Amino acid sequence: MKILILSADGFEDMELFVPYYRFKEEGFDVDVASKKRQTIEGRHDYKIEANRSFDEINPEEYDMLFLPGGKAPSKVRKEDPALQIVKHFMDKNKPIVTICHGPQIMISAGVVHDRRMTCWPDVAKELKEAGATYEDIEVVVDGNIVSSRMPEDLPAFMQEVMKKAKVTV
Amino acid sequence: MKILILSADGFEDMELFVPYYRFKEEGFDVDVASKKRQTIEGRHDYKIEANRSFDEINPEEYDMLFLPGGKAPSKVRKEDPALQIVKHFMDKNKPIVTICHGPQIMISAGVVHDRRMTCWPDVAKELKEAGATYEDIEVVVDGNIVSSRMPEDLPAFMQEVMKKAKVTV
Repeated sequence: MKILILSADGFEDMELFVPYYRFKEEGFDVDVASKKRQTIEGRHDYKIEANRSFDEINPEEYDMLFLPGGKAPSKVRKEDPALQIVKHFMDKNKPIVTICHGPQIMISAGVVHDRRMTCWPDVAKELKEAGATYEDIEVVVDGNIVSSRMPEDLPAFMQEVMKKAKVTV
Repeated sequence: MKILILSADGFEDMELFVPYYRFKEEGFDVDVASKKRQTIEGRHDYKIEANRSFDEINPEEYDMLFLPGGKAPSKVRKEDPALQIVKHFMDKNKPIVTICHGPQIMISAGVVHDRRMTCWPDVAKELKEAGATYEDIEVVVDGNIVSSRMPEDLPAFMQEVMKKAKVTV
């Protein structure tokens, strides 16, 4: 199982690190990509090394895409190479798991139409405008997409994410 | 599986929340105790509700004790009801899992003599002075005690913690 995380400065620290450490606990390979290879910093001052840049990613190499939240997705959604990665996962029906503001990247990639999803409350309006069916619950699973709203949803989110990971392996 | 966390203001946020959310993912019951029932705040501004006070805990009800790190253990170690809880777990040979500065609480409870453990580097000196054998590795398992050094050790720590939890269930 090889997992790709797309993020940037301003990520929501728990939303990135709780899944990141959980994946490592399970022995999965995890790469963190940002616009450039660089250290990125969360809203709560935790730091992580982005060991890949968006434009050097070959998405064929990865089994699952994880889009954490915070302020980072508003930067990631402006980067075409990141959007192309999202489209690859949708085209191949590979799992995309996302929380909080992460669905903004999927909206910009044009992949949420007719899908059931949740997100951070402030993102719900644009998610619905993009054609998704928004549900205000802790985790929504619709085909290859797993989505949650906020850090408090992480236990339910990780239950569903780990199911996807174990089916895919 | 019922798990008790002892902490206070100044906890290391990832060290408390990564295991906390992992326990919840697994469906375990988790109580957080502090000197009083109150909201406690980590060094990185995350908050959690301490839903129990030390002096109202009946340690017989719990299967595992978790002592996270940060600045909180320097407060917890001064509270005799907290030290009595630690002694109960040692007397009953029930799992105590701890990271970073958490072992300070065990030092004050007088339970580390002749045990193999690790901890945050700055705590190593007093751990050794208290009679423990200190090992500078990501996780040390010695009987009922699982210990780690820092947030980066969390994946290895949680692998061993979950083994203890699943044996105990």
